[in-house]
Amino acid sequence: MSGMKPGTRSPDLATLQESIQEPLAEVQRVFLEAVETELVQMNEVSRHLVKQQGKKFRPTLVLLSARLGGNLSDDAVKSAAAVELIHTATLLHDDVIDENWIRRGLPTVNAKWNNHLSLILGDYLYSRAFVLLTENKLWSALEILSRTTHQMSEGEMLQILRTDQLEISEEEYFSFIRDKTASLIAASCEIGGRCAGGDPEAFASYGMNLGIAFQIIDDLLDFTGTERDLGKPVGNDFRVGKVTLPVIAALKNAPPQQREMARELLRSRESLNGRWGDVVAFINQYGGVEYALERAAGHGEDAKCALSRIGRAADREALELAVDFVISRRN
Amino acid sequence: MSGMKPGTRSPDLATLQESIQEPLAEVQRVFLEAVETELVQMNEVSRHLVKQQGKKFRPTLVLLSARLGGNLSDDAVKSAAAVELIHTATLLHDDVIDENWIRRGLPTVNAKWNNHLSLILGDYLYSRAFVLLTENKLWSALEILSRTTHQMSEGEMLQILRTDQLEISEEEYFSFIRDKTASLIAASCEIGGRCAGGDPEAFASYGMNLGIAFQIIDDLLDFTGTERDLGKPVGNDFRVGKVTLPVIAALKNAPPQQREMARELLRSRESLNGRWGDVVAFINQYGGVEYALERAAGHGEDAKCALSRIGRAADREALELAVDFVISRRN
Repeated sequence: MSGMKPGTRSPDLATLQESIQEPLAEVQRVFLEAVETELVQMNEVSRHLVKQQGKKFRPTLVLLSARLGGNLSDDAVKSAAAVELIHTATLLHDDVIDENWIRRGLPTVNAKWNNHLSLILGDYLYSRAFVLLTENKLWSALEILSRTTHQMSEGEMLQILRTDQLEISEEEYFSFIRDKTASLIAASCEIGGRCAGGDPEAFASYGMNLGIAFQIIDDLLDFTGTERDLGKPVGNDFRVGKVTLPVIAALKNAPPQQREMARELLRSRESLNGRWGDVVAFINQYGGVEYALERAAGHGEDAKCALSRIGRAADREALELAVDFVISRRN
Repeated sequence: MSGMKPGTRSPDLATLQESIQEPLAEVQRVFLEAVETELVQMNEVSRHLVKQQGKKFRPTLVLLSARLGGNLSDDAVKSAAAVELIHTATLLHDDVIDENWIRRGLPTVNAKWNNHLSLILGDYLYSRAFVLLTENKLWSALEILSRTTHQMSEGEMLQILRTDQLEISEEEYFSFIRDKTASLIAASCEIGGRCAGGDPEAFASYGMNLGIAFQIIDDLLDFTGTERDLGKPVGNDFRVGKVTLPVIAALKNAPPQQREMARELLRSRESLNGRWGDVVAFINQYGGVEYALERAAGHGEDAKCALSRIGRAADREALELAVDFVISRRN
């Protein structure tokens, strides 16, 4: 089972963004204006943040959802910029908590400057997002994003408090990725849909499933990706002790003796040295990769199913492709 | 010149709160409900936060402003709880950035647990405040608090970036305390006033001046207070290199030779050891204490002046007393 049928083209994000280039450029303009502070000394940091910016997946979802809902309005553009601000703020705080030193091939703000600056810049960007929304009276987006930032921080808190990652269950893993990642992707789709007056529940369900698939693949790429594609070393999550779906699945499938050996490897984390190959082999041998792909594809199908309740088939194509993109992406 | 006329009673906060005990208890109930997470492991941290809670000065201002505006409604109560949540979140993040280990006689969350927990708990409380406001559709409070958190984070950023504190001008000092402290106190009064349909500008101006006086006295107490009253060591700000109004004023007044000696003391900061007495003597000798008191009293008068534009004289008494409390307080 796979989200991609044989022969299906593997779409990249740029393809999805072709039809929304103009509003997406406008999102970026609003984003840049918000990131810019009045403090001259901060401009270097802001420029670094912008260089490190991702491919605007979440704003893309806001805009495509709004278009499918029937109205890609200025409200959708502003909401998309707010989502990108919140996403960026979250990354700044996550990089402090997870002690990430590199992201998208560049040092993180906490690595290049310090934790204090990441903390306060994150707060600054959160507040910019809320100012943008209140100034434009985008109450519904505000409601969704308040709820979502709350859910995200609860997820992050849960992870900090989870001392024995090795005992994490599949259920906890799913609950965690829903809170931590999928919630903002779901919010992006719901906000876009609502801006256009579409059925918010269908959009939220599409986004939640898409977001879960997105994070499963993200976690899988830590084992199957390349440093070049990822812009950060492989095995990064593993080394900081994050136990993700491929590991959970392989541990479950492995016979007791192999399981114990694997646990030892997992406990050694940073001191793994040359044994990373053994970890990857274990994950592959006991079906961790396969299982994660299967679950991601399943949520991809659920996303498409929720999508089928919205609008006309021809208009759904871009968001259908977004699912294929998420499943087949390499970074 | 002084905010307190001879013979005037020096009010404490409890006196101000006498007439609003019920709504204040309700604020606390809403606050506690919001602080409580679904994570059992967090309860210990939440309880610690509550033990460390201050005297609810900001919620008191929201409620008293709402009452003076003519309507101490449930909206005012909820808004007051949101203000307290934001205030608490700010303290959590400030304690990380300023490396504070003790607050109100107890270890800070970053001292007792770690920076990561303070960061994420701060994010959690911010988001709880925004959820509380959106769920109750308190759009105007939301607008004010978005703007205010933005202003506060900008102030904090400015302070982080200020590398040579000794060159800070009086103007910069005032701009900083406006952003960092007075803005939330102003917001508290404006929100309360607005809830009741009062003149928001007069309330905001009252609160801004009150907040400036509040912070000047706070900074002064670092030199003139006692550890027992403050719940933290005296000279704390000074030792971490924060240059405040008493220092700025004394440096300005001192003859060149004394100024250079004082600068040396200031640069030695943590290594001051037995020379703290010299610092206090310098501040006193060159009028730093007197000047700070004078400026605080001046802003206190401005606050009362703004207040005189609101409501009936008899109803203004509590907020007038709040000014006297701020000027005469010892902690």
